Amino acid sequence: MRVAIVGASGYTGLELVRILLRHPHFELVVATSEQRAGMPVGEAFPSLRGQLDLTFQSNDPEQFVGGVDLAFTALPHAASAPTVRALRKAGIPVADLSADFRLRDPGTYAAWYGEHSAPELLAGAVYGLPELHREELRRAALVAVPGCYPTSVLLPLAPFLRAGLVETSGVVVDSKSGVSGAGRTADARFLFAEREGNCEAYKVGYAHRHVPEMEQEAALAAGQGVQITFVPHLLPTTRGIVTSVYLRPRGRITAADAREVLAAAYADERFVRVLPEGEAPSLASVRGSNRCDVAAFADERNGCLILLSALDNLVKGASGQAVQCANLMSGFPEEAGLLDVTMVP
Amino acid sequence: MRVAIVGASGYTGLELVRILLRHPHFELVVATSEQRAGMPVGEAFPSLRGQLDLTFQSNDPEQFVGGVDLAFTALPHAASAPTVRALRKAGIPVADLSADFRLRDPGTYAAWYGEHSAPELLAGAVYGLPELHREELRRAALVAVPGCYPTSVLLPLAPFLRAGLVETSGVVVDSKSGVSGAGRTADARFLFAEREGNCEAYKVGYAHRHVPEMEQEAALAAGQGVQITFVPHLLPTTRGIVTSVYLRPRGRITAADAREVLAAAYADERFVRVLPEGEAPSLASVRGSNRCDVAAFADERNGCLILLSALDNLVKGASGQAVQCANLMSGFPEEAGLLDVTMVP
Amino acid sequence: MRVAIVGASGYTGLELVRILLRHPHFELVVATSEQRAGMPVGEAFPSLRGQLDLTFQSNDPEQFVGGVDLAFTALPHAASAPTVRALRKAGIPVADLSADFRLRDPGTYAAWYGEHSAPELLAGAVYGLPELHREELRRAALVAVPGCYPTSVLLPLAPFLRAGLVETSGVVVDSKSGVSGAGRTADARFLFAEREGNCEAYKVGYAHRHVPEMEQEAALAAGQGVQITFVPHLLPTTRGIVTSVYLRPRGRITAADAREVLAAAYADERFVRVLPEGEAPSLASVRGSNRCDVAAFADERNGCLILLSALDNLVKGASGQAVQCANLMSGFPEEAGLLDVTMVP
Amino acid sequence: MRVAIVGASGYTGLELVRILLRHPHFELVVATSEQRAGMPVGEAFPSLRGQLDLTFQSNDPEQFVGGVDLAFTALPHAASAPTVRALRKAGIPVADLSADFRLRDPGTYAAWYGEHSAPELLAGAVYGLPELHREELRRAALVAVPGCYPTSVLLPLAPFLRAGLVETSGVVVDSKSGVSGAGRTADARFLFAEREGNCEAYKVGYAHRHVPEMEQEAALAAGQGVQITFVPHLLPTTRGIVTSVYLRPRGRITAADAREVLAAAYADERFVRVLPEGEAPSLASVRGSNRCDVAAFADERNGCLILLSALDNLVKGASGQAVQCANLMSGFPEEAGLLDVTMVP
Repeated sequence: MRVAIVGASGYTGLELVRILLRHPHFELVVATSEQRAGMPVGEAFPSLRGQLDLTFQSNDPEQFVGGVDLAFTALPHAASAPTVRALRKAGIPVADLSADFRLRDPGTYAAWYGEHSAPELLAGAVYGLPELHREELRRAALVAVPGCYPTSVLLPLAPFLRAGLVETSGVVVDSKSGVSGAGRTADARFLFAEREGNCEAYKVGYAHRHVPEMEQEAALAAGQGVQITFVPHLLPTTRGIVTSVYLRPRGRITAADAREVLAAAYADERFVRVLPEGEAPSLASVRGSNRCDVAAFADERNGCLILLSALDNLVKGASGQAVQCANLMSGFPEEAGLLDVTMVP
Repeated sequence: MRVAIVGASGYTGLELVRILLRHPHFELVVATSEQRAGMPVGEAFPSLRGQLDLTFQSNDPEQFVGGVDLAFTALPHAASAPTVRALRKAGIPVADLSADFRLRDPGTYAAWYGEHSAPELLAGAVYGLPELHREELRRAALVAVPGCYPTSVLLPLAPFLRAGLVETSGVVVDSKSGVSGAGRTADARFLFAEREGNCEAYKVGYAHRHVPEMEQEAALAAGQGVQITFVPHLLPTTRGIVTSVYLRPRGRITAADAREVLAAAYADERFVRVLPEGEAPSLASVRGSNRCDVAAFADERNGCLILLSALDNLVKGASGQAVQCANLMSGFPEEAGLLDVTMVP
Repeated sequence: MRVAIVGASGYTGLELVRILLRHPHFELVVATSEQRAGMPVGEAFPSLRGQLDLTFQSNDPEQFVGGVDLAFTALPHAASAPTVRALRKAGIPVADLSADFRLRDPGTYAAWYGEHSAPELLAGAVYGLPELHREELRRAALVAVPGCYPTSVLLPLAPFLRAGLVETSGVVVDSKSGVSGAGRTADARFLFAEREGNCEAYKVGYAHRHVPEMEQEAALAAGQGVQITFVPHLLPTTRGIVTSVYLRPRGRITAADAREVLAAAYADERFVRVLPEGEAPSLASVRGSNRCDVAAFADERNGCLILLSALDNLVKGASGQAVQCANLMSGFPEEAGLLDVTMVP
Repeated sequence: MRVAIVGASGYTGLELVRILLRHPHFELVVATSEQRAGMPVGEAFPSLRGQLDLTFQSNDPEQFVGGVDLAFTALPHAASAPTVRALRKAGIPVADLSADFRLRDPGTYAAWYGEHSAPELLAGAVYGLPELHREELRRAALVAVPGCYPTSVLLPLAPFLRAGLVETSGVVVDSKSGVSGAGRTADARFLFAEREGNCEAYKVGYAHRHVPEMEQEAALAAGQGVQITFVPHLLPTTRGIVTSVYLRPRGRITAADAREVLAAAYADERFVRVLPEGEAPSLASVRGSNRCDVAAFADERNGCLILLSALDNLVKGASGQAVQCANLMSGFPEEAGLLDVTMVP
């Protein structure tokens, strides 16, 4: 199956290249980059030298739409929608890594991102978290691959909301992310000298664009509105997210109970590992893999349930998840091309 | 004034050396290290070569008690108490950086650390957070320098508890610390190859020894018991702590209100900076300094008040704070020797 | 083909696990660790949880020799020789990652490592650098996998020595290595807090055990003795080596000439990339892969030829190279299991 | 004495701010930044919040020339010369941190940087390496503060050239620098995600602009031309340079002899430490200080003398050295404001 990556020179685009080069069923035949059009991919990115024989094309779907069977779009939000529309018009299934098709409600989209340019596609888009929407994904032609933070929050949180075990207001999420989440933009705030050994919160409370996305999917799981206070932090590392979710249980829940809720929810999942008692997820254990590790703790004294998760923001938080979705869309084994073993140390 | 550092070869001990070498009123005349006794300090620690003319002595107070006017003890908990007792018997004022004299209640100490070996000194020990206990510190002969995490929690939290503005249960604290907090112990878990780019929670919920210390001081501020769920994380950096405190306000509090509470509490404080609207504390802004930056945010939608702080765990979280206390104990200007400007980048 | 890793809990052992789990022809059936014997591998190393169903055995070959067709030994030098002897006695082909079989001359071994305990095996051991000894490796039953530094030096250097293009004395090598080269030993010098942001030379001049190994293989290439002054440095990173080799050309050699020498030598090599004019090898381009990037520069003004290389010390510098050798020993395609694409960023 | 920093918002400018805020004799009264003119310094740089009461002015000397007694110029090369000319016309002594006044010969300057715009000032400029040019610096009105790499090379090298102990051709220098040397420019190559854990050479051989500067000063020391092959590397750290200098001795020189040469040269120097036998300079030992550590080793077998050095590129390699020069120019104690103790860890 021939695939294209539209916007292949950003960090999520390059991670798609890495995964697809070893995928047993997808053949990468098109990689686009407006800025590098005409340049061999292996020249633009020295780590890929000798690994593939592709030259960057422009982003214009007209140029390649005839030769591909599926497309991954990894463009900035707003830039993505028109490209996706063109691809869909040509009948190409799309896994979109931007935010453009994640929010069901055009009004919410407008409030956080600006007017939507392809609202007619929203109804048909499926939120690409296979552990929550697997069956719809098998039939989807347009998948909105989730944000990195929402994936790290929803995987531990959803089972508790679904079972009605926790309050739906007062949810607190404290996340810590590597700086690759900011992309390859030349911004002085993300220079090595500014970030080495540094850590700080940003977009605190109800300010990050991933909040409406988390709340939308949390509400679906809960069957009612969910309020999430979200505080993301920048870590002095490149890859990975660790997340703490703080919940108020509706009745008594011990840590062991909570681990069982997670174990039941993810017993058959290939990419979610529920950690045993006392073990906390770490970036080192998931880096480079499509896995999300989750764990549950409780401070019963204080009426507090604590869910922790870790994932690689560029894999399970973006490109790996996109391939997992594309596998489902294409009828391939869900784990095809995604079984990398974490490199330690 | 001649001072000793007992246990000068650990990270907090070395940080005391760094600060005291440039202190205008304290003269460092004794540095002890059981393991390196007899070795010139500048030979054992190449960064100090040529900076001082001292040779490590053994930890035994008998050896040096006659020649010093004040002592900093930077020994492991349990090991500290007998040394402090000997120093106090000799009439030497002590700023103790261990946990041995932080908890008022010997039973609580026993539950978290084991039987206390000098319980008779507890009543006279003062908790060394000058912003909370300045007047007592001026008269103290034994100061228990706070833990790094409690300092980062109590400075933002105490004013809200004191004013009765927030619920005293359901308090959630999510902290992130550099690995120097673990000391210079040769433990494979803290090898560079294990920690580079890694991040994970540990001692989750009600498991870290700093929790009873936080709760003790929080209760003093609140005038009633306070329950704190605490989740510390290890950051891939050497120095610094950033902390998020999540609170439920008793009435309506906007972010601006909360900033005013902090501003009022710390208007005259030299070492606490209240950040303006929208700015979050960062490690880079406090590293190497005795400052603690604090900020307030709110998610009113979700009934959540968010306090953030940042400090250097080895300075305001340990050795700088110890010197600040010793300045008070000795009648020196509180900021003497502590006005380093943060090195950026 | 069933394989064992003897000493699977060190960094090179774990890297072997990572590679072998995805190898198409080798099946990992035994992993040993004296210290962790009886513990499931995925419990001891959380990143491997759920990735394999093996329990650590003791290092004793008697326990597993009947069930394996080839063994990788990743034990410390001196500890390796007796184990290798036992495995060879049982007829098991061995790829040994220690230093025990790298030096042809028992006297040289004794001078740098102490008396050899299995000198009778030296004559049959083949130095496991496939680009230099491919044909012998196809017939080898005992392979001495090279040290990480020698691999980074010999790949760029050998073609120039072979062609007699450079002086054989006055060779200078300046190398920079990630700290994983020191292994997982709990040594305070390798703590995160000691190494973050730090860099320094060690074992300067003619003091590192890899020098005799480099000189032995360089002499084989040159057909005469070669003297190498070697200065290794520790980098504040976990993985990777970059090396500079400084040579005095015998006649005039331009940078272009030198690149052609490299290109000719490595035209058919899968794991050596010769970089184009002006491009220097970087760790980021080889990390996690079995590749070695090489480049040539010249300062003709000053009679100086400069060769640069980069590799991942745990892959092409150790475990990847071991698998490359084992592929040759076993008649498998040389690149089997070794085509990982570098993860960037 | 009232001083200005022209170009105070780059990394060397900020480091000047840090040093001058605690300087006993200089009072910082002007800080300029074209881009941030009108902004309080402590607002633009959060680490400085509350540390000083200055607002950035524009770079135009007309605005402040009446109120200052000495100026530090920390502008990019070419931009610096006209500013320095204006300051000198107004009679203000200047310590210039750019490259504009380092090269004696306008032709050499033109070859590496382009036409010089104030060549009439070159003859009066003094190269600001106090250990080599102290007496001229006491009388200088315009000081060209050396580049970071040249300082790290010349301090170990000069004594050997001066004594005629080594060959003046075939000198090889391999340097490793933290990325702060590249300044705060928003360039994607210096993003955290691109540099974390990465290392690579750049401008290899005879391509870096610091080479003519090294060769000029080396020739002055040797009394004849000196050829230096220079290979700089980027380290995955923010601050510091370690340098290896490889020399061919003219006669026999042991490591002990070489250490004595260094010890004799620097016996009375406050900022150069000669390390004892077997100890190599490390970044951690000099970070944040104005010291340069030097050491000597030999591989007599191979006719190779090895000199090693370490310094902080923003202190002894730039701003600290500038203050050291300004102290000399102003008749203050050379070490005033420069006695910081390195922060370890």
